[in-house]
Amino acid sequence: MTAPRSRPGRRAHNRSMSALVLQSDFGLDDGAVSAMYGVAVGVDPGLRIHDVTHNIPPYDIWEGSYRLAQVLSYWPEGTVFVSVVDPGVGSDRLSVVARTATGHLVVTPDNGTLTHLDAIFGITELREIDETRHRRPGSEESYTFHGRDIYAFTGARLAAGIASFEDVGPALDPAALVRLPIAEPELADGRVTGTIDTLDVRYGSLWTSIPRTLFAQLGVGPGDRVTVRVRHHDTVVHAAQVTYARSFAAVEVGESLLYVNSLDRMAIAINRGHYARAFSLGTGASWHVTLDPVR
Amino acid sequence: MTAPRSRPGRRAHNRSMSALVLQSDFGLDDGAVSAMYGVAVGVDPGLRIHDVTHNIPPYDIWEGSYRLAQVLSYWPEGTVFVSVVDPGVGSDRLSVVARTATGHLVVTPDNGTLTHLDAIFGITELREIDETRHRRPGSEESYTFHGRDIYAFTGARLAAGIASFEDVGPALDPAALVRLPIAEPELADGRVTGTIDTLDVRYGSLWTSIPRTLFAQLGVGPGDRVTVRVRHHDTVVHAAQVTYARSFAAVEVGESLLYVNSLDRMAIAINRGHYARAFSLGTGASWHVTLDPVR
Amino acid sequence: MTAPRSRPGRRAHNRSMSALVLQSDFGLDDGAVSAMYGVAVGVDPGLRIHDVTHNIPPYDIWEGSYRLAQVLSYWPEGTVFVSVVDPGVGSDRLSVVARTATGHLVVTPDNGTLTHLDAIFGITELREIDETRHRRPGSEESYTFHGRDIYAFTGARLAAGIASFEDVGPALDPAALVRLPIAEPELADGRVTGTIDTLDVRYGSLWTSIPRTLFAQLGVGPGDRVTVRVRHHDTVVHAAQVTYARSFAAVEVGESLLYVNSLDRMAIAINRGHYARAFSLGTGASWHVTLDPVR
Repeated sequence: MTAPRSRPGRRAHNRSMSALVLQSDFGLDDGAVSAMYGVAVGVDPGLRIHDVTHNIPPYDIWEGSYRLAQVLSYWPEGTVFVSVVDPGVGSDRLSVVARTATGHLVVTPDNGTLTHLDAIFGITELREIDETRHRRPGSEESYTFHGRDIYAFTGARLAAGIASFEDVGPALDPAALVRLPIAEPELADGRVTGTIDTLDVRYGSLWTSIPRTLFAQLGVGPGDRVTVRVRHHDTVVHAAQVTYARSFAAVEVGESLLYVNSLDRMAIAINRGHYARAFSLGTGASWHVTLDPVR
Repeated sequence: MTAPRSRPGRRAHNRSMSALVLQSDFGLDDGAVSAMYGVAVGVDPGLRIHDVTHNIPPYDIWEGSYRLAQVLSYWPEGTVFVSVVDPGVGSDRLSVVARTATGHLVVTPDNGTLTHLDAIFGITELREIDETRHRRPGSEESYTFHGRDIYAFTGARLAAGIASFEDVGPALDPAALVRLPIAEPELADGRVTGTIDTLDVRYGSLWTSIPRTLFAQLGVGPGDRVTVRVRHHDTVVHAAQVTYARSFAAVEVGESLLYVNSLDRMAIAINRGHYARAFSLGTGASWHVTLDPVR
Repeated sequence: MTAPRSRPGRRAHNRSMSALVLQSDFGLDDGAVSAMYGVAVGVDPGLRIHDVTHNIPPYDIWEGSYRLAQVLSYWPEGTVFVSVVDPGVGSDRLSVVARTATGHLVVTPDNGTLTHLDAIFGITELREIDETRHRRPGSEESYTFHGRDIYAFTGARLAAGIASFEDVGPALDPAALVRLPIAEPELADGRVTGTIDTLDVRYGSLWTSIPRTLFAQLGVGPGDRVTVRVRHHDTVVHAAQVTYARSFAAVEVGESLLYVNSLDRMAIAINRGHYARAFSLGTGASWHVTLDPVR
């Protein structure tokens, strides 16, 4: 059961190494993430391995998809991501490697994890992983831990330059990707409407699906007031006036604000408070938010 | 108090470097783990340092022992583990380095932490750390943080190839290791009995002590039904029929299953549920589980 | 939005590389920390990046200041720390790089984060970051995430040897640093008084501001008894006799002790218990503790 000690010889000098960045819903309380790291180190002890987060809520593909989109563009071109939120492990869902328009690679089950990357950055190429050739030696009898045996192993070989994108398996049509439904934000009647996609977890800010560029069409400037209305399904559950501000420091402690988040989208927060908890608001496709300039 | 900036000279090229992998019950909320990392980086800034987990419940030696066994074989031969779950720091418990039959090294207090590694993989050699020679320079007056001053320091020097296993101190007889009591799983009357050793923390699956190979003697095949009975001390606290399946995807969402986990042992789960919480089940030597094929 | 793949050419061989060590109050549940890592890897893929902790309670500058002081001296000279607890992001608070008397660099907002480093180790030089020259290319329109765009970026360039301390911007007088108020521990009438500065989070030990050297003037030896009195504002909320011990193992399980912590200061704990929770004690400037030898 022991991986051989790797011997990076002359070949190491000819390979192009990229960072390997792991994400999962495994948490950090047991050894699951460490096993993935060990497999990657066994592929090449020189690999630089980092993380998005391993605290994706269990089975929450939407959140996994979103977090990839949150970080992708801050990592250098060529970085190889591995994302394992995989409630369907052992089913006939495919294992794929996607190449984004930004030149990053993502190794993942094809279960919707690529939804936001495709919508925001674009998936330009897609390949199915040939699991007969690309799996940890000795793992043929393992059916429940593809994160370690297939995804971490394949991601490490891509990052180490041992396997190329073209090697991993047959090309697929990116149009056939499994996608989670996402509603397009809309501008109508002088206001914009979108969904609450996720939270800035620790601070409780609402991260909406509304791009700054769409909001900009309302002609609202820093310091202007905007009415925030939140509907859960068809019921208005929250309405408040907030200030559009460049930063938290532009409003008082305890005051609410509308700002542009790190994904270049509109977000709503209480300065040093927790907006979602304060007003019992949730996230997902059933939570709609409307931004309506106060005139 | 400052460590000197390391100067890896020609010697670095002649040394064999291994990964250093840390585990503790320190949590990640304060600076204790970072201090261990800093000491290791001070030994050799080129070291690759990774983790098993630092969220072992405080003082829980059993869990520390188990998590090492969960990950060991996925790391390359030669990897140096440091495990610090050390309620007896400052007592006369020994500090040791163990070599496993798989060729890994483990630096740890001799307090039971090596129990599962010995039972599953075998400890072939054991040495006591000579703490007069192997401790962080300047730490002679420190009595409460051996994790940093002795274990991380010694582990880093082993991983960096600065100290060898033979250097660390006198050889001990592996038979004299402190061992936690573990009950052998048994096959009798056409059923197997073992203990609930731990949980797959985030998903709540019961990880039993029953090896796949022992269970295989019952002749149960994928799709067959098995009765799971759990006793706490001598009382049956849970009984249910579940399906033996290769993967979670083979049963419905919300359905229970018996499967082979990443340690090649039998585990019991609810697909997308939390088995332990659903039935208020615990872990440890007082929790027995019997698998009885439905005929 | 994509960072260019870095091309470390001949220049890499002439640069002196140091470890980059990150701290924040971002938590590990979303992608904020990963974005900082990505920016640093984009600066130089060869950087060794580690952490203090990212679980500083949101906006808690005191805790951020304390944790830096907890770990600093265990990292090699030259290590570059980045600490982002930044409730005033977007205000006119300065961004600075400090050099400590121990030869470490710290990149941080000047909001009190350097208080304990200055008090314990001394800040010998201070420079303001010229944010027009030292920020992630493309981040000019970002006003809310200086942790990623300015601090991680600048810290990475310092650690990689691309920028020097002298490069970052104009020198400031270290005397002008923003400092949180800290009360000096006092010896009077045969007892010492200080504050409860923080907890050893997982074990609940009280970490006081009282240095071992001050306590030593009381002439108390291992095994002697000491009365611990805790006042919250002006009310005594706790009093107990404890044993002064070199290590936890010197007292029974469940017994309280006074010991020297890893910052060389006095701390109070219950062996395998949680002192702060047991007696409902808090931390900060309003929590005073007196150590009074039993005679």
